[in-house]
Amino acid sequence: MIDLRPIAAIIGVLLAILGTTMMIPALVDLVAGQPDFVVYAAAAVITCFVGLSLWLAGRSGEVQRLDLRQAFVLTTASWVMLSAFAAIPFMWAQTDLPFVDAYFEAMSGLTTTGATVITDLDHRPPGVLIWRAFLHWYGGIGIIVLAIALLPMMRIGGMQLFRAESSDKSEKMLPRAAQMAKGILGTYLILSLACAVAYAALGMSVFDAVAYAMATISTGGFATHDASIGYFNSPAIEYAAVFFMLAGSLPFVLYVRVLAGDFSRLFANAEVRLFLTLVGLFTLISTLQQVLGGIAQGETALRQALFNVVSIMSTTGFVAADFTNWGPPTDALYFILLFLGACTGSTAGGMKSFRIAILGSALVQHLKRVIYPNGVFPVLYGGKPIGDDVVASVLSFAFLYLASFMVIGIVINGLGFDMITAFSASITAVANVGPGLGTVIGPAQNFAALPDHVIWLLSFGMLVGRLELFTVLVLFLPSFWRR
Amino acid sequence: MIDLRPIAAIIGVLLAILGTTMMIPALVDLVAGQPDFVVYAAAAVITCFVGLSLWLAGRSGEVQRLDLRQAFVLTTASWVMLSAFAAIPFMWAQTDLPFVDAYFEAMSGLTTTGATVITDLDHRPPGVLIWRAFLHWYGGIGIIVLAIALLPMMRIGGMQLFRAESSDKSEKMLPRAAQMAKGILGTYLILSLACAVAYAALGMSVFDAVAYAMATISTGGFATHDASIGYFNSPAIEYAAVFFMLAGSLPFVLYVRVLAGDFSRLFANAEVRLFLTLVGLFTLISTLQQVLGGIAQGETALRQALFNVVSIMSTTGFVAADFTNWGPPTDALYFILLFLGACTGSTAGGMKSFRIAILGSALVQHLKRVIYPNGVFPVLYGGKPIGDDVVASVLSFAFLYLASFMVIGIVINGLGFDMITAFSASITAVANVGPGLGTVIGPAQNFAALPDHVIWLLSFGMLVGRLELFTVLVLFLPSFWRR
Repeated sequence: MIDLRPIAAIIGVLLAILGTTMMIPALVDLVAGQPDFVVYAAAAVITCFVGLSLWLAGRSGEVQRLDLRQAFVLTTASWVMLSAFAAIPFMWAQTDLPFVDAYFEAMSGLTTTGATVITDLDHRPPGVLIWRAFLHWYGGIGIIVLAIALLPMMRIGGMQLFRAESSDKSEKMLPRAAQMAKGILGTYLILSLACAVAYAALGMSVFDAVAYAMATISTGGFATHDASIGYFNSPAIEYAAVFFMLAGSLPFVLYVRVLAGDFSRLFANAEVRLFLTLVGLFTLISTLQQVLGGIAQGETALRQALFNVVSIMSTTGFVAADFTNWGPPTDALYFILLFLGACTGSTAGGMKSFRIAILGSALVQHLKRVIYPNGVFPVLYGGKPIGDDVVASVLSFAFLYLASFMVIGIVINGLGFDMITAFSASITAVANVGPGLGTVIGPAQNFAALPDHVIWLLSFGMLVGRLELFTVLVLFLPSFWRR
Repeated sequence: MIDLRPIAAIIGVLLAILGTTMMIPALVDLVAGQPDFVVYAAAAVITCFVGLSLWLAGRSGEVQRLDLRQAFVLTTASWVMLSAFAAIPFMWAQTDLPFVDAYFEAMSGLTTTGATVITDLDHRPPGVLIWRAFLHWYGGIGIIVLAIALLPMMRIGGMQLFRAESSDKSEKMLPRAAQMAKGILGTYLILSLACAVAYAALGMSVFDAVAYAMATISTGGFATHDASIGYFNSPAIEYAAVFFMLAGSLPFVLYVRVLAGDFSRLFANAEVRLFLTLVGLFTLISTLQQVLGGIAQGETALRQALFNVVSIMSTTGFVAADFTNWGPPTDALYFILLFLGACTGSTAGGMKSFRIAILGSALVQHLKRVIYPNGVFPVLYGGKPIGDDVVASVLSFAFLYLASFMVIGIVINGLGFDMITAFSASITAVANVGPGLGTVIGPAQNFAALPDHVIWLLSFGMLVGRLELFTVLVLFLPSFWRR
């Protein structure tokens, strides 16, 4: 049997924090004279009460000595539980969503996906807008801590590569997590603040600047206007968004080292270099496609390409220019971009650049092995050979990632949606990007048009994708619960 | 340097055979009173002349002792060269195709793909129709011999699993190939004859019966009528086609063993069982989709489902009922089917069932390893543990297969075609199925509408897919040509 007490205690603390932060939208709506402030206050009381109860019930467990299986249960359970409580305000406030939609919105927030079922954002009370942005921000720091502290121990999808050499025992996971979290949280706060200041300086209202900053650094993508970033119609804001979306896409551990004075570390990192190279390459392709297709010229073409490529590869999902109107020369490019993602240990989702690098190297080495069956061709990452177990993990991850995408896509298509909608909904959820393609869930539309069972499926897709697939799917294996 | 003489000698022989068989369409057109017979006779003379010259030039080489790199060059070069000569009649006969289209048609024939650029089949001289069917038949036996004799030695995509235990040396490849080929060729002839007899008995003309039989056993898909199998509007013919498409999809080595009296071997084979299970499963899903969607009922729904599922999974690409009119509940299903393929050592293309089995097992074992990092969980195939090198080969193959599909798809889309056309063209070529999806290259259309560069790209896709990717792609690696 798995001792659930430490799990309950930790989720209790996380819920208490979530409940406390519900006072932010409460205050915002109070100041704005919106009656919804009562809703947030009530939800805060309930959430904090449940959180404290769980903590009291579980604190007798050995929280400091979490084992591997407890870590798996904790990870999935925390996103599932927090989404449920974060959904309460969406049901009770003026948004008046049914539970399925409220849960989707909360999961989309906490997984930093940014797919939304809420329409008419421009006329919503500020409370609900800041609550959505805050969910991104809370989920963003959560996923960084998870990726640094837990996933490497869990050997998820090749992330054993990022195990710190010093401490390798799963028993020590939590103390390390707490210690790491401080440095990371500082960076996260500084970047968010810098982003908000930049947005405000470039013409956003302070409210918009704070909300968009939280959605930018977390690579989430929730906006306070239906037109997303396009609302401001400001090239300067778009460039600022590009800069801070990229900032959210890089490994946060590196920032801590950069702050310690070692600036060269940032660009010496193999994953960062590949990610930025891919961004450059796809921006070039997209720019050329626009110029040759007569869609846009010069700086406009470059900016639109850069913004869209960074928005999708960082898995933010902000929209400035709707690329889906550009036609065939560009849509397959953007479809492929939906899969890639950015760097590990950032707030971005998707396949991630380090896996793309390892897949590429594995392929070349495999081709060489085909020619020289007796040769030794180790798979390289950052110029160094890596273990076969890491390669196998990465290949398994890639296959499972594509399989999840296909299964969810085929089910949605089977439920009556065209293939572009079905498959783009699937990948945009699993990769935590946000908007899909096509006329139903494209960048200019939202997910409100989808029926309940598709919404549930996509909520599950976001969860599975955010937690790197294996973390959630092992729980469905009978042997996980045995012994 | 690679000694090209034995390669030239073997290709010379293959060309001489191809040239000789051009007398078949010559005779057919002569009997039918079509002037095209001169074209086939002239092409035969040219092809035989070049073939004999190559044989004379190369016969001093050690044909019996082909090494691994020679085998790679031979494999790709034979399909590339034979397609060039097989294309001559398409250029000079009444079809009057430019070289790019003629080459595509020949490559489509010899790779048993069945995608066509020739329109108005119902009014074409019989010579060109039988020539297309014969190219399938010749390519079909070629791919079986290749899969049994060469690919396992080449360790292509996990096919080392099928190495005969007795002989393992690449030097002995050719004698074994010749010995195997006899048993296989006998089976191939018997099945083709049985299929032709069945078709004729069920109402086809003798000409149609022979042409369709050659396209069926080779899982090719070229038809002598624009409406493909649908032309006959006969459920009995459709069921017969299902039976013989399945016959072409099973490993031909097993037939030789069955003919030796060991009938149980056929259904004891892990790959055959998985393939037939998948056929049953997808037929069930497609039947239900038709019934629930009000498209068809009862036997009609079942037959349409069975025919389409077998036609696509066997990578034949015959069309009876155009499933693309059935709408969203079914099209993603058929899109996924395009990837799967049938069994190794058959005439079918695609991913192949043994790889699907290994991928599935690798995934489950990997999930278990995530839970129990110190446990030993070997990947199983047919209940037996298989080596890590096989698993790595299969995972690499799967990844390269999807990568090829995506790259070709994105390029076609970038050239101005919608995503359904672009991606279905890509996979239908790489998996050697034949028809694509959508309004341009769907089952009711053909590839004549595509521009030259797309046609070249798809010819390359068919070649790469038919020869199991690695065989062709290693040639692009500089280290292949070094030393």
